[in-house]
Amino acid sequence: MKRKSLDEAFCPIARSLDQVGDWWSLLLVRDLMAGKRRFSDLHDSLGIARNMLSARLKRLIACEIIAPCPAADGSARQEYALTPKGRDLFTVLVALGQWGGRWTSCGNDFTLVEQATGLEIAPLEIRSSDGRKLAPSDIAFRAGAEGGGAAPESPPYSAACA
Amino acid sequence: MKRKSLDEAFCPIARSLDQVGDWWSLLLVRDLMAGKRRFSDLHDSLGIARNMLSARLKRLIACEIIAPCPAADGSARQEYALTPKGRDLFTVLVALGQWGGRWTSCGNDFTLVEQATGLEIAPLEIRSSDGRKLAPSDIAFRAGAEGGGAAPESPPYSAACA
Repeated sequence: MKRKSLDEAFCPIARSLDQVGDWWSLLLVRDLMAGKRRFSDLHDSLGIARNMLSARLKRLIACEIIAPCPAADGSARQEYALTPKGRDLFTVLVALGQWGGRWTSCGNDFTLVEQATGLEIAPLEIRSSDGRKLAPSDIAFRAGAEGGGAAPESPPYSAACA
Repeated sequence: MKRKSLDEAFCPIARSLDQVGDWWSLLLVRDLMAGKRRFSDLHDSLGIARNMLSARLKRLIACEIIAPCPAADGSARQEYALTPKGRDLFTVLVALGQWGGRWTSCGNDFTLVEQATGLEIAPLEIRSSDGRKLAPSDIAFRAGAEGGGAAPESPPYSAACA
Protein backbone atom coordinates (compact mmCIF):
# COMPACT_ATOMS: atom_id res chain seq x y z
CA MET A 1 0.00 0.00 0.00
CA LYS A 2 1.25 3.44 -0.88
CA ARG A 3 0.91 5.31 2.33
CA LYS A 4 -0.25 8.84 2.85
CA SER A 5 2.73 10.99 3.79
CA LEU A 6 2.44 12.02 7.39
CA ASP A 7 5.40 14.31 7.08
CA GLU A 8 3.50 17.56 7.48
CA ALA A 9 1.11 16.41 10.17
CA PHE A 10 0.94 18.54 13.28
CA CYS A 11 1.21 15.42 15.42
CA PRO A 12 4.82 14.63 16.31
CA ILE A 13 3.95 10.93 16.67
CA ALA A 14 2.74 10.89 13.06
CA ARG A 15 5.85 12.71 11.87
CA SER A 16 8.08 10.26 13.70
CA LEU A 17 6.25 7.34 12.13
CA ASP A 18 6.67 8.93 8.72
CA GLN A 19 10.43 8.54 9.19
CA VAL A 20 10.74 5.34 11.23
CA GLY A 21 7.29 3.76 10.98
CA ASP A 22 8.36 0.65 9.11
CA TRP A 23 9.56 -2.37 11.05
CA TRP A 24 12.92 -2.47 9.25
CA SER A 25 13.86 1.14 10.11
CA LEU A 26 13.95 0.66 13.85
CA LEU A 27 15.64 -2.75 13.51
CA LEU A 28 18.36 -1.08 11.41
CA VAL A 29 18.75 1.57 14.12
CA ARG A 30 18.90 -1.21 16.73
CA ASP A 31 21.64 -3.03 14.79
CA LEU A 32 23.66 0.16 14.29
CA MET A 33 23.37 0.91 18.02
CA ALA A 34 24.60 -2.60 18.78
CA GLY A 35 27.77 -1.99 16.76
CA LYS A 36 26.99 -3.19 13.23
CA ARG A 37 28.37 -0.76 10.63
CA ARG A 38 28.72 -2.74 7.39
CA PHE A 39 26.14 -3.41 4.72
CA SER A 40 26.91 -7.13 4.86
CA ASP A 41 26.39 -7.31 8.64
CA LEU A 42 23.10 -5.44 8.42
CA HIS A 43 22.03 -7.69 5.55
CA ASP A 44 22.84 -10.84 7.55
CA SER A 45 20.98 -9.52 10.58
CA LEU A 46 17.77 -8.42 8.87
CA GLY A 47 17.51 -11.03 6.12
CA ILE A 48 15.93 -8.69 3.56
CA ALA A 49 16.97 -8.45 -0.10
CA ARG A 50 20.05 -6.36 -0.86
CA ASN A 51 18.20 -3.87 -3.05
CA MET A 52 15.58 -3.39 -0.35
CA LEU A 53 18.25 -2.82 2.28
CA SER A 54 19.91 -0.26 -0.01
CA ALA A 55 16.65 1.62 -0.42
CA ARG A 56 16.04 1.59 3.33
CA LEU A 57 19.52 2.90 4.10
CA LYS A 58 19.07 5.70 1.53
CA ARG A 59 15.78 6.69 3.13
CA LEU A 60 17.34 6.82 6.61
CA ILE A 61 20.24 8.88 5.22
CA ALA A 62 17.74 11.30 3.62
CA CYS A 63 16.02 11.65 7.02
CA GLU A 64 19.44 12.32 8.63
CA ILE A 65 18.99 9.36 10.99
CA ILE A 66 22.11 7.62 9.72
CA ALA A 67 25.13 8.85 7.74
CA PRO A 68 27.61 7.05 5.49
CA CYS A 69 31.11 7.09 6.90
CA PRO A 70 34.57 5.74 6.02
CA ALA A 71 35.38 2.16 6.97
CA ALA A 72 36.95 1.78 10.43
CA ASP A 73 39.72 -0.37 8.92
CA GLY A 74 40.77 2.29 6.40
CA SER A 75 39.52 0.35 3.36
CA ALA A 76 37.41 1.93 0.63
CA ARG A 77 34.26 0.17 1.82
CA GLN A 78 31.43 2.38 3.00
CA GLU A 79 30.01 1.94 6.45
CA TYR A 80 27.05 3.50 8.25
CA ALA A 81 26.70 5.23 11.60
CA LEU A 82 23.89 6.83 13.54
CA THR A 83 23.65 10.62 13.65
CA PRO A 84 22.67 12.38 16.90
CA LYS A 85 19.07 12.28 15.65
CA GLY A 86 19.40 8.52 15.12
CA ARG A 87 21.03 7.90 18.49
CA ASP A 88 18.18 9.80 20.12
CA LEU A 89 15.87 6.96 19.01
CA PHE A 90 17.32 4.90 21.83
CA THR A 91 14.41 5.76 24.12
CA VAL A 92 11.95 4.59 21.45
CA LEU A 93 13.81 1.26 21.20
CA VAL A 94 13.81 0.87 24.99
CA ALA A 95 10.06 1.59 25.11
CA LEU A 96 9.40 -1.00 22.38
CA GLY A 97 11.73 -3.54 23.99
CA GLN A 98 10.14 -3.18 27.42
CA TRP A 99 6.63 -3.46 25.99
CA GLY A 100 7.67 -6.54 24.02
CA GLY A 101 9.22 -8.05 27.13
CA ARG A 102 6.03 -7.52 29.10
CA TRP A 103 3.53 -8.71 26.49
CA THR A 104 5.19 -10.99 23.95
CA SER A 105 7.73 -12.92 26.00
CA CYS A 106 9.11 -16.04 24.35
CA GLY A 107 10.76 -17.48 27.45
CA ASN A 108 14.35 -16.89 26.38
CA ASP A 109 14.37 -13.17 26.05
CA PHE A 110 17.04 -10.62 25.50
CA THR A 111 16.80 -8.14 28.34
CA LEU A 112 18.11 -4.58 28.55
CA VAL A 113 20.57 -4.44 31.43
CA GLU A 114 22.94 -1.92 32.96
CA GLN A 115 26.43 -2.74 31.71
CA ALA A 116 28.09 -2.11 35.09
CA THR A 117 25.78 -4.24 37.24
CA GLY A 118 24.14 -6.69 34.82
CA LEU A 119 20.79 -5.74 36.35
CA GLU A 120 17.72 -5.05 34.27
CA ILE A 121 17.06 -1.33 33.76
CA ALA A 122 13.95 0.27 35.24
CA PRO A 123 10.73 0.51 33.20
CA LEU A 124 10.37 3.91 31.52
CA GLU A 125 8.06 6.20 33.47
CA ILE A 126 6.10 9.23 32.34
CA ARG A 127 6.70 12.20 34.63
CA SER A 128 5.60 15.82 34.96
CA SER A 129 8.01 18.68 34.39
CA ASP A 130 8.72 18.69 38.15
CA GLY A 131 9.23 14.93 38.36
CA ARG A 132 5.90 13.54 39.59
CA LYS A 133 4.91 10.18 38.09
CA LEU A 134 1.94 10.52 35.71
CA ALA A 135 -0.69 8.08 34.40
CA PRO A 136 -1.97 8.20 30.80
CA SER A 137 -5.19 9.73 32.16
CA ASP A 138 -3.17 12.73 33.45
CA ILE A 139 -1.97 13.66 29.97
CA ALA A 140 -3.46 15.53 27.01
CA PHE A 141 -2.34 16.87 23.67
CA ARG A 142 -2.10 20.64 23.36
CA ALA A 143 -1.93 22.38 19.99
CA GLY A 144 0.95 24.80 19.54
CA ALA A 145 4.38 24.39 21.10
CA GLU A 146 4.82 27.76 22.76
CA GLY A 147 3.61 28.93 26.15
CA GLY A 148 2.55 26.99 29.22
CA GLY A 149 -0.50 26.83 31.45
CA ALA A 150 -3.14 27.02 28.72
CA ALA A 151 -6.03 24.57 28.86
CA PRO A 152 -5.38 21.38 26.88
CA GLU A 153 -7.43 21.08 23.70
CA SER A 154 -7.99 17.33 23.66
CA PRO A 155 -9.74 15.18 26.23
CA PRO A 156 -7.33 13.39 28.56
CA TYR A 157 -6.36 9.92 27.45
CA SER A 158 -8.55 8.40 30.16
CA ALA A 159 -11.51 9.04 27.88
CA ALA A 160 -10.35 6.21 25.68
CA CYS A 161 -9.00 3.90 28.29
CA ALA A 162 -12.14 3.01 30.23
CA MET B 1 7.20 -6.39 0.43
CA LYS B 2 6.16 -9.50 2.35
CA ARG B 3 8.11 -9.21 5.52
CA LYS B 4 9.85 -11.93 7.44
CA SER B 5 7.84 -12.69 10.57
CA LEU B 6 9.74 -11.48 13.60
CA ASP B 7 7.26 -13.08 15.93
CA GLU B 8 9.59 -15.74 17.31
CA ALA B 9 12.70 -13.59 17.53
CA PHE B 10 14.44 -13.53 20.88
CA CYS B 11 14.67 -9.75 20.70
CA PRO B 12 11.67 -8.08 22.35
CA ILE B 13 12.10 -5.03 20.10
CA ALA B 14 11.68 -7.26 17.05
CA ARG B 15 8.64 -8.97 18.53
CA SER B 16 7.05 -5.61 19.34
CA LEU B 17 7.64 -4.43 15.79
CA ASP B 18 6.06 -7.62 14.47
CA GLN B 19 2.83 -6.50 16.13
CA VAL B 20 2.95 -2.71 15.85
CA GLY B 21 5.74 -2.08 13.33
CA ASP B 22 3.57 -0.50 10.66
CA TRP B 23 2.91 3.20 10.77
CA TRP B 24 -0.88 2.74 10.85
CA SER B 25 -0.89 0.45 13.93
CA LEU B 26 0.49 3.02 16.31
CA LEU B 27 -1.65 5.78 14.81
CA LEU B 28 -4.71 3.62 15.41
CA VAL B 29 -3.57 3.10 19.01
CA ARG B 30 -3.04 6.87 19.30
CA ASP B 31 -6.56 7.60 18.02
CA LEU B 32 -8.13 5.02 20.36
CA MET B 33 -6.22 6.54 23.28
CA ALA B 34 -7.51 9.97 22.31
CA GLY B 35 -11.12 8.76 22.56
CA LYS B 36 -12.05 7.57 19.05
CA ARG B 37 -14.01 4.31 19.19
CA ARG B 38 -15.94 4.08 15.93
CA PHE B 39 -14.80 2.71 12.59
CA SER B 40 -15.96 5.90 10.84
CA ASP B 41 -13.96 8.16 13.20
CA LEU B 42 -10.82 6.06 12.75
CA HIS B 43 -11.38 6.06 8.99
CA ASP B 44 -11.72 9.85 8.92
CA SER B 45 -8.59 10.30 11.02
CA LEU B 46 -6.26 7.96 9.13
CA GLY B 47 -7.54 8.44 5.59
CA ILE B 48 -6.84 4.86 4.49
CA ALA B 49 -9.26 2.70 2.47
CA ARG B 50 -12.05 1.01 4.44
CA ASN B 51 -10.94 -2.52 3.57
CA MET B 52 -7.40 -1.72 4.65
CA LEU B 53 -8.63 -0.28 7.95
CA SER B 54 -10.73 -3.42 8.50
CA ALA B 55 -7.71 -5.64 7.95
CA ARG B 56 -5.60 -3.53 10.32
CA LEU B 57 -8.23 -3.65 13.06
CA LYS B 58 -8.49 -7.45 12.69
CA ARG B 59 -4.74 -7.78 13.02
CA LEU B 60 -4.69 -5.65 16.20
CA ILE B 61 -7.59 -7.70 17.61
CA ALA B 62 -5.67 -10.92 16.84
CA CYS B 63 -2.68 -9.49 18.72
CA GLU B 64 -4.97 -8.60 21.66
CA ILE B 65 -4.01 -4.92 21.42
CA ILE B 66 -7.60 -3.83 20.81
CA ALA B 67 -10.94 -5.54 21.37
CA PRO B 68 -14.37 -5.05 19.78
CA CYS B 69 -16.93 -3.77 22.24
CA PRO B 70 -20.59 -2.71 22.26
CA ALA B 71 -21.43 0.84 21.19
CA ALA B 72 -21.47 3.34 24.04
CA ASP B 73 -24.89 4.60 22.88
CA GLY B 74 -26.51 1.15 23.09
CA SER B 75 -26.91 0.79 19.31
CA ALA B 76 -25.91 -2.38 17.45
CA ARG B 77 -22.84 -0.71 15.96
CA GLN B 78 -19.49 -2.21 16.90
CA GLU B 79 -16.83 -0.06 18.49
CA TYR B 80 -13.23 -0.67 19.45
CA ALA B 81 -11.27 -0.16 22.65
CA LEU B 82 -7.72 -0.74 23.78
CA THR B 83 -6.93 -3.75 25.94
CA PRO B 84 -4.45 -3.43 28.86
CA LYS B 85 -1.74 -4.56 26.41
CA GLY B 86 -2.78 -1.80 24.01
CA ARG B 87 -2.95 0.87 26.71
CA ASP B 88 0.56 -0.10 27.76
CA LEU B 89 1.78 1.20 24.37
CA PHE B 90 1.36 4.70 25.78
CA THR B 91 5.04 4.92 26.68
CA VAL B 92 5.98 3.97 23.09
CA LEU B 93 3.74 6.77 21.77
CA VAL B 94 5.25 9.27 24.20
CA ALA B 95 8.78 8.24 23.15
CA LEU B 96 7.87 8.65 19.47
CA GLY B 97 6.09 11.94 20.11
CA GLN B 98 8.99 13.43 22.06
CA TRP B 99 11.51 12.32 19.44
CA GLY B 100 9.31 13.81 16.70
CA GLY B 101 8.99 17.03 18.66
CA ARG B 102 12.77 17.32 19.03
CA TRP B 103 13.79 16.41 15.48
CA THR B 104 10.92 17.00 13.06
CA SER B 105 9.20 20.09 14.43
CA CYS B 106 6.80 21.81 12.06
CA GLY B 107 6.42 24.99 14.10
CA ASN B 108 2.83 24.39 15.15
CA ASP B 109 3.18 21.22 17.09
CA PHE B 110 0.92 19.25 19.27
CA THR B 111 2.66 18.86 22.61
CA LEU B 112 2.07 16.30 25.35
CA VAL B 113 1.08 18.20 28.48
CA GLU B 114 -0.07 17.38 31.99
CA GLN B 115 -3.84 17.80 32.08
CA ALA B 116 -3.86 19.49 35.52
CA THR B 117 -1.19 22.13 34.84
CA GLY B 118 -1.07 22.46 31.05
CA LEU B 119 2.72 22.13 31.28
CA GLU B 120 4.72 19.96 28.93
CA ILE B 121 5.63 16.57 30.46
CA ALA B 122 9.28 15.71 31.13
CA PRO B 123 11.35 13.89 28.51
CA LEU B 124 11.48 10.13 29.14
CA GLU B 125 14.69 9.10 30.88
CA ILE B 126 16.40 5.73 31.02
CA ARG B 127 17.23 4.75 34.60
CA SER B 128 18.85 1.88 36.47
CA SER B 129 16.85 -0.43 38.72
CA ASP B 130 17.76 1.84 41.66
CA GLY B 131 16.89 5.07 39.86
CA ARG B 132 20.19 6.42 38.53
CA LYS B 133 19.98 8.12 35.12
CA LEU B 134 21.73 6.04 32.42
CA ALA B 135 23.20 6.87 29.01
CA PRO B 136 22.89 4.51 26.01
CA SER B 137 26.55 3.61 26.55
CA ASP B 138 25.68 2.24 30.01
CA ILE B 139 23.29 -0.35 28.59
CA ALA B 140 23.66 -3.78 26.98
CA PHE B 141 21.46 -6.65 25.87
CA ARG B 142 21.65 -9.82 27.93
CA ALA B 143 20.33 -13.14 26.63
CA GLY B 144 17.87 -14.92 28.91
CA ALA B 145 15.39 -13.20 31.20
CA GLU B 146 16.14 -14.89 34.52
CA GLY B 147 18.83 -14.06 37.09
CA GLY B 148 20.78 -10.87 37.67
CA GLY B 149 24.40 -9.91 37.86
CA ALA B 150 25.69 -11.99 34.94
CA ALA B 151 28.00 -10.34 32.42
CA PRO B 152 26.13 -8.84 29.46
CA GLU B 153 26.61 -10.73 26.20
CA SER B 154 26.56 -7.82 23.78
CA PRO B 155 28.89 -4.85 23.59
CA PRO B 156 27.47 -1.74 25.21
CA TYR B 157 25.65 0.55 22.84
CA SER B 158 28.51 3.02 22.95
CA ALA B 159 30.33 0.76 20.48
CA ALA B 160 28.00 1.98 17.76
CA CYS B 161 27.57 5.54 18.86
CA ALA B 162 31.10 6.88 18.44
